[in-house]
Amino acid sequence: MTTTGLDEFALLDETWRAVTPDAARRMLIAAAHAFAEKGYHATTTRDIASLAGMSPAAVYIHYRSKEELLFNISLLGHETSLALLNGIEGGDAAQRLRTAVSAFAGWHAEFHTTARVVQYELGALTPEHHAEVAELRRQIEQRMRSFIADGVAEGVFDVGDLKGATLAVLSLCIDVARWYQPGGRRTPDEIGALYADLVLRMVRPAG
Amino acid sequence: MTTTGLDEFALLDETWRAVTPDAARRMLIAAAHAFAEKGYHATTTRDIASLAGMSPAAVYIHYRSKEELLFNISLLGHETSLALLNGIEGGDAAQRLRTAVSAFAGWHAEFHTTARVVQYELGALTPEHHAEVAELRRQIEQRMRSFIADGVAEGVFDVGDLKGATLAVLSLCIDVARWYQPGGRRTPDEIGALYADLVLRMVRPAG
Repeated sequence: MTTTGLDEFALLDETWRAVTPDAARRMLIAAAHAFAEKGYHATTTRDIASLAGMSPAAVYIHYRSKEELLFNISLLGHETSLALLNGIEGGDAAQRLRTAVSAFAGWHAEFHTTARVVQYELGALTPEHHAEVAELRRQIEQRMRSFIADGVAEGVFDVGDLKGATLAVLSLCIDVARWYQPGGRRTPDEIGALYADLVLRMVRPAG
Repeated sequence: MTTTGLDEFALLDETWRAVTPDAARRMLIAAAHAFAEKGYHATTTRDIASLAGMSPAAVYIHYRSKEELLFNISLLGHETSLALLNGIEGGDAAQRLRTAVSAFAGWHAEFHTTARVVQYELGALTPEHHAEVAELRRQIEQRMRSFIADGVAEGVFDVGDLKGATLAVLSLCIDVARWYQPGGRRTPDEIGALYADLVLRMVRPAG
């Protein structure tokens, strides 16, 4: 493979491993970086090919269009973060909510490049692709809401507006992708721990 | 004035009133809408002129470059939201924090188009302009931090990590600009009230 502008570390990353063959994965990672850098509309398939160290024609072997690249990045991002939430079980309601917030906020730090594309370019998806992604977003919302609702049912959380609190918790975690900088003051794990503490404070009953 | 794609309501908006003459204000509002829609890099000064119902050459009478339009939008957005926070005084620490969160979150709903440009296109500013905006961001952070610190000093708030809590509060409010939709489930005022409640819960001492 040629040397490109692509962070080689990203190629080894767990999130992208399911994408095969290698060339398709390389293309998808290049697209995520280019979209995050310049925005979806200002990025050409030529930019993506060049970043991936491939010919422009090679893009179309794996993806029909630039939008299909965006859709695949968006699917992968949503499926990965949903899987994190779906994998949480056992413990009491407070432990599950702590783990959920920590994992979801941490993911948005660790995968901030992908997360920015996923969160800020939803409007560029075709209506059909948007509907598929919206369904995954509904599942993420439901899952986070169920962690809070469990604690309310058990009487250990006190939440006036369950939908509102869920919205705020998800929003808090998602915005990490905007401000997070690698090598900054806090690591993804530290952000996860801080946010889990703050959210647990939000839902605890009045003293 | 010609009929354009520009929301005429925006032209009457309080936020933009300080921009004179009218043509410069019209241009700036058009730029904010175009940047929010397509992203800064994909927007041309021709797009902006067309949206403002003016000739491409007219842009350069008021602004030297596309980046100067972005810088002016960014300045206006940061100055307006800082002024909201600076205007809060009187009452006790809890009341001031409630008002601050309500106003800051509400602003990011009401002015979500401007706020998205302001928040997501920081990277496109020149280093000099970026430094000016970063100074305003520091002042916003300090002001929000002081509202929390006042309550800690008075013993009515209990916050383990003051900087971390401030970061989370600002981030929560800013992300409203991403998900808010006019005509959606919650009005800007309702979002402000919900978020003020959640933040007050975050900082209250353990029972």
